[in-house]
Amino acid sequence: MPSHTQLWIYDTTLRDGAQREGLSLSVEDKLNIARRLDDLGIPFIEGGWPGANPKDGQFFAQLQQQPLRQAEIVAFCSTRRPRCPVAEDVTLAAALAARTNWVTLFGKSWDLHVTESLKTDLNENLSMIYDSVAYLRKQGRRVIYDAEHWFDGYLNNPTYAVQTLEAAIRAGAEWLVLCDTNGGMLPHQITDVVRTVSQWLTTLNLDNLPRLGIHTHNDGEMAVANAVTAAIEGATMIQGTINGYGERCGNANLCSLIPNLQLKLGYNCLPAHKLASLTETSRYVSEVVNLAPDDHAPYVGLSAFAHKGGIHVSAVERNPSTYEHVEPDAVGNRRRIVISDQAGLSNVMAKARSFGLQLDRTNPTSRHLLQRLKCLEDEGYQFEAAEASFELLMREALGQRPNMFDIHGFQVHCERMPYGTGTVNHSPESPASSYSLATVKIAVDGKNLLHAAEGNGPVEALDNALRKALERFYPELERFYLTDYKVRILDSAAGTAAKTRVLVEFSDGESRWTTVGLSPNILEASYQAVVEGLEYGLLKLRSQVKAKLVACQS
Amino acid sequence: MPSHTQLWIYDTTLRDGAQREGLSLSVEDKLNIARRLDDLGIPFIEGGWPGANPKDGQFFAQLQQQPLRQAEIVAFCSTRRPRCPVAEDVTLAAALAARTNWVTLFGKSWDLHVTESLKTDLNENLSMIYDSVAYLRKQGRRVIYDAEHWFDGYLNNPTYAVQTLEAAIRAGAEWLVLCDTNGGMLPHQITDVVRTVSQWLTTLNLDNLPRLGIHTHNDGEMAVANAVTAAIEGATMIQGTINGYGERCGNANLCSLIPNLQLKLGYNCLPAHKLASLTETSRYVSEVVNLAPDDHAPYVGLSAFAHKGGIHVSAVERNPSTYEHVEPDAVGNRRRIVISDQAGLSNVMAKARSFGLQLDRTNPTSRHLLQRLKCLEDEGYQFEAAEASFELLMREALGQRPNMFDIHGFQVHCERMPYGTGTVNHSPESPASSYSLATVKIAVDGKNLLHAAEGNGPVEALDNALRKALERFYPELERFYLTDYKVRILDSAAGTAAKTRVLVEFSDGESRWTTVGLSPNILEASYQAVVEGLEYGLLKLRSQVKAKLVACQS
Repeated sequence: MPSHTQLWIYDTTLRDGAQREGLSLSVEDKLNIARRLDDLGIPFIEGGWPGANPKDGQFFAQLQQQPLRQAEIVAFCSTRRPRCPVAEDVTLAAALAARTNWVTLFGKSWDLHVTESLKTDLNENLSMIYDSVAYLRKQGRRVIYDAEHWFDGYLNNPTYAVQTLEAAIRAGAEWLVLCDTNGGMLPHQITDVVRTVSQWLTTLNLDNLPRLGIHTHNDGEMAVANAVTAAIEGATMIQGTINGYGERCGNANLCSLIPNLQLKLGYNCLPAHKLASLTETSRYVSEVVNLAPDDHAPYVGLSAFAHKGGIHVSAVERNPSTYEHVEPDAVGNRRRIVISDQAGLSNVMAKARSFGLQLDRTNPTSRHLLQRLKCLEDEGYQFEAAEASFELLMREALGQRPNMFDIHGFQVHCERMPYGTGTVNHSPESPASSYSLATVKIAVDGKNLLHAAEGNGPVEALDNALRKALERFYPELERFYLTDYKVRILDSAAGTAAKTRVLVEFSDGESRWTTVGLSPNILEASYQAVVEGLEYGLLKLRSQVKAKLVACQS
Repeated sequence: MPSHTQLWIYDTTLRDGAQREGLSLSVEDKLNIARRLDDLGIPFIEGGWPGANPKDGQFFAQLQQQPLRQAEIVAFCSTRRPRCPVAEDVTLAAALAARTNWVTLFGKSWDLHVTESLKTDLNENLSMIYDSVAYLRKQGRRVIYDAEHWFDGYLNNPTYAVQTLEAAIRAGAEWLVLCDTNGGMLPHQITDVVRTVSQWLTTLNLDNLPRLGIHTHNDGEMAVANAVTAAIEGATMIQGTINGYGERCGNANLCSLIPNLQLKLGYNCLPAHKLASLTETSRYVSEVVNLAPDDHAPYVGLSAFAHKGGIHVSAVERNPSTYEHVEPDAVGNRRRIVISDQAGLSNVMAKARSFGLQLDRTNPTSRHLLQRLKCLEDEGYQFEAAEASFELLMREALGQRPNMFDIHGFQVHCERMPYGTGTVNHSPESPASSYSLATVKIAVDGKNLLHAAEGNGPVEALDNALRKALERFYPELERFYLTDYKVRILDSAAGTAAKTRVLVEFSDGESRWTTVGLSPNILEASYQAVVEGLEYGLLKLRSQVKAKLVACQS
């Protein structure tokens, strides 16, 4: 175990990560993420490509006014264009205008790319690399050289690939980052190539040996493995993105890489006390970029330390290493005991504890709750993915579910306007115009309320009508919004008459909770789940307020 | 490159994959997936744990009546309980009752688990392994021995871990599968341990050397890398799941593993022509389990070969290897660029052939259809799992979609009766009584028809009203029934206002077909899909009748 060696983590979420299809960042988003990464203790943060993107120019300008606390913010740019004097190159000028200490300059290592993409000759490419690095150095910048397509290039034409690195070294690059740009390498190839490059560097007899870095993509699902492999072979700069965002299949996921390197291999990456902020950082970034977090992500996912089944649960409670590869606390995640029809009493107890509820094994309520749970799951309810509904059920059994409102039924009317003739489907030329109206009858504090609202569809109409009725009493409702909606038919042989199970997810921008509804009527099931989602959000908010009051008083 | 070595892929989607939080499979779902995996050419399919789960028992019983074509279906079970005679063990009896040729038996390799989980002594565990394997062999089963927690066990107490394997070998296990149950291993550890075990096996001088397998989990984002590493060290059975489903962070993802092994390392895994069905299989399974596919998944994701504009696109068009690690066609995926592409066209052609429709590449209809398809998929339609809708679309373009009826809108009214006070949910004592009424207006042969019907829910009411209107003209409708109904929200940030996609499956008792509907209004989307489902059934029946007539006349 190569213990206590220092590694430099280099985050490129704001540049390579933003290449992910469907992800777009405002300047404000970028600043928020950069500050969060700075807090986490990431030493290098690539901020963008100022020449290629006007937003990135603004981002660097704003950071000059309010600099980060510790991290080096890095500008990214390409080598000068072919046959163009370096001082006249606009992207290099833009990179300099970002006024960072460090610039990452990328150049071509693969002869195929020189002739196919740049459409120039191999010698000119070497000059482009040399000139660009030397120019940045002369302007006082420190240079990280990204050798694009390094591995493909080296495997196809090692002699030429090595010449490109030599050009960067001679011009004064301090780091050489070996990139698997197409993401297709396998770990044993990384081992061979990084080892060879590492040995070659020592033969150069330089006073200031440039250091090696690694930049990997996930097209073969190997990005994290390849980066770890390169670190073991001596690469000390490790590039990646939060949550593995990036073009195509993404970049190496720092949320997996960092704990693998630090907890398992003993490298120093982040300050030791910062690693516990990793889960929060991952979820924060996913909120900022507005992508649902991957619940099954290693280390930081909601399910990463989730346990099912009785024996399993009691074993993990006695000795966590029986079913956990690391302690969830180490990365700021937590163990979750999953409720399902395999649940035993120990699951229910563990769950109550995690909700902050007092429940002990001898309490008859515990057994009653377990019976109730199994009975509801037999009917088709599913609490595994609907913890909020389960918490409400538990609070009810314990007399800790305050009555916020009573439901007295609803009506829904939907109408699809007639339109011409022809087939019903796939006709964007004659879009269906449909109309949905919902009426709900509910009571708050004994007052009967009848409210109606329209919507794009019946579920939205119901949600709107409910909010209209409740907002006077609970104005905080407007902070919750629905983030996911899933429907599953249960007894499929019954066809359209079958029971439907609806899972609904709400968020208040910080956390998410899921509720469940069940009925042969899909609208009824949706209504149940939406009602409980709103109720749970209100309860949660109240207990937070209460906790704050207690904290102030004490 | 260890070329042309045969590997045996072992799929455990139906057992370990089903452990994923939020995933639940009906017997019908399991049968559908098993048949699809059989088609793909997977040689071993683990069907479930018959002792632990009543559903799994039914699954094996149904497969006895309608066996798979080629794949071996495998029952999973644990070693006998401590101090219990093997012939009295209920889970072993259940595994035998599944009547498979192969049984996978798992046992403990890690001394900690023997004492902490099983609460027995180390010698008894060795007897449990020996007795269980020997008993299964005596009953005529072939045995795959899963060494649970192998790597943790070996690293903690190698002497004992090796004794557990010896017990399995002496009793007649044909495969020894080394499991990284907690998913925390790194590739260099896999290399060391698998190499050592491999060397140890050769020192045993056995006539029938058991073969090695590998089973990995993704808690360190290393599942695929670890499995590939084990293959390089000589493991020949590779276990994993479609889309990497599995407990916590999942199992090794076969959709990445198989192409890595077959395309990059030259192993034989699937029949060569089957690899191109991988993307379709991945998406099919994600539809059956009702989980959104990961667009950024390696090889099979929608974005896996997506290219953005400019130089990049022209370079990739001149020479795909500039930005693609493999050819997307090889795994049945396609390059996605703005302009229309040949790969897409060939898919359309192939599809037409599979529907028995004449369509050739030079026909402008082909290009028109491709454009239309892309346009609809951009809107959110998905035809991967809705081939009946796609066939209707294709027939329409070719003028081969007879007009059976015209749709002139619908109305739906739903009402949930008031019922007392209290919480809306989980109240089996006071079941909700709800009422749904639908009115449809359609035309057949120019005749306008207005019909109303009730139902358990709005979708059933719509289905009933449609049938009522059509049955006089198409009495054969009564032979079709709805067998599945799935809903997914598309742009989840829009909450209840988001677009919903409904997939509906019909059956006539012999075959099944699936249609798709899309709308912000869930009832509208359901209606679209149901209407197309009925239309497709009628069309299909007519062409069968026609084919029979032709056969009689000739």
